[in-house]
Amino acid sequence: MIKGRVKGKIWSSRRVDSMPSGALLEIEVEEGGQLIAFDPLGCDTDESVLITQGSVAASYFNGRTAPVDALIIGSIDETKT
Amino acid sequence: MIKGRVKGKIWSSRRVDSMPSGALLEIEVEEGGQLIAFDPLGCDTDESVLITQGSVAASYFNGRTAPVDALIIGSIDETKT
Amino acid sequence: MIKGRVKGKIWSSRRVDSMPSGALLEIEVEEGGQLIAFDPLGCDTDESVLITQGSVAASYFNGRTAPVDALIIGSIDETKT
Amino acid sequence: MIKGRVKGKIWSSRRVDSMPSGALLEIEVEEGGQLIAFDPLGCDTDESVLITQGSVAASYFNGRTAPVDALIIGSIDETKT
Amino acid sequence: MIKGRVKGKIWSSRRVDSMPSGALLEIEVEEGGQLIAFDPLGCDTDESVLITQGSVAASYFNGRTAPVDALIIGSIDETKT
Repeated sequence: MIKGRVKGKIWSSRRVDSMPSGALLEIEVEEGGQLIAFDPLGCDTDESVLITQGSVAASYFNGRTAPVDALIIGSIDETKT
Repeated sequence: MIKGRVKGKIWSSRRVDSMPSGALLEIEVEEGGQLIAFDPLGCDTDESVLITQGSVAASYFNGRTAPVDALIIGSIDETKT
Repeated sequence: MIKGRVKGKIWSSRRVDSMPSGALLEIEVEEGGQLIAFDPLGCDTDESVLITQGSVAASYFNGRTAPVDALIIGSIDETKT
Repeated sequence: MIKGRVKGKIWSSRRVDSMPSGALLEIEVEEGGQLIAFDPLGCDTDESVLITQGSVAASYFNGRTAPVDALIIGSIDETKT
Repeated sequence: MIKGRVKGKIWSSRRVDSMPSGALLEIEVEEGGQLIAFDPLGCDTDESVLITQGSVAASYFNGRTAPVDALIIGSIDETKT
């Protein structure tokens, strides 16, 4: 998984039917770069989140086929090193 | 998912039989680089799009095996940060 | 697989229900960069570990759907070149 | 998908049994770098090709398990931008 | 697939039970970087090999779930360009 920070939402009115309804968040990845992740948790801007990618993200949507390859799976509390 | 912009179409007359009919668009990825994505939405040149990658893209083609590893899943309206 | 070193744990109290209980470790990848991996072995800080990624990591959780795309699969003893 | 150009063939006499018979081509990726792709189309050196990657490439081999993670799916005619 | 060269073995005594027995080789990837691949062929140090990655590598282990995301699928004879 990777860590990132929520930068904002994106809207896509014209999209494929299999796209689940829910927020699509723009994420600044801690290691650099940006991606768009589906958010099932209702995260806020600037929140630190944990993201899973690939077919693992799509398998979150049990019993349906969702074209989602990046999913927020948790909000990060703190990091102890 | 990643954001990109449509640059044009590519044509491939000689291709594997399992390739679905439909447009193959050349995409300029926002983070840098280019890729070719299958377009089920009929996007225009310079349109800003959302792209899913990997086996998630292929699973869009229900009930058949399509060799597609990048799919346009939406046209992006606007971004609020 | 890739080699990495355990840097610490992260905590995520608010997370998706399908997340398995267990440690999420911050890993410094030998080739550069960091990632978060699920740890089924109880590894210590500074331990050198072997990590598998993608849907292969999720398939470790037999009979359930876990949103895990990085898994520690071994502690590395030594390297002979 | 990605675009590339055929540079030559590679031969592997000693290989796993599940490897399908057919040409393995060395591809120069347009964005940089090289990879080896399975070629079901009989492409020539210097031909411009379209490549799909990951488990999508393996699923081309219906009804058998092939260890192929890169597949040529088309020969590119021309690009209009 | 990618080309690489065998640099040595790694040992992991403490590992998950689903890890298949067999050699884990440290590979220097031709394009740069290193990875660890499972070796079903008994390759030697300095041997040039072909590697497949991702869930395709795991599917080599028919009828069992192996946490292997990189697999040597062939020894490379020669390259003609």
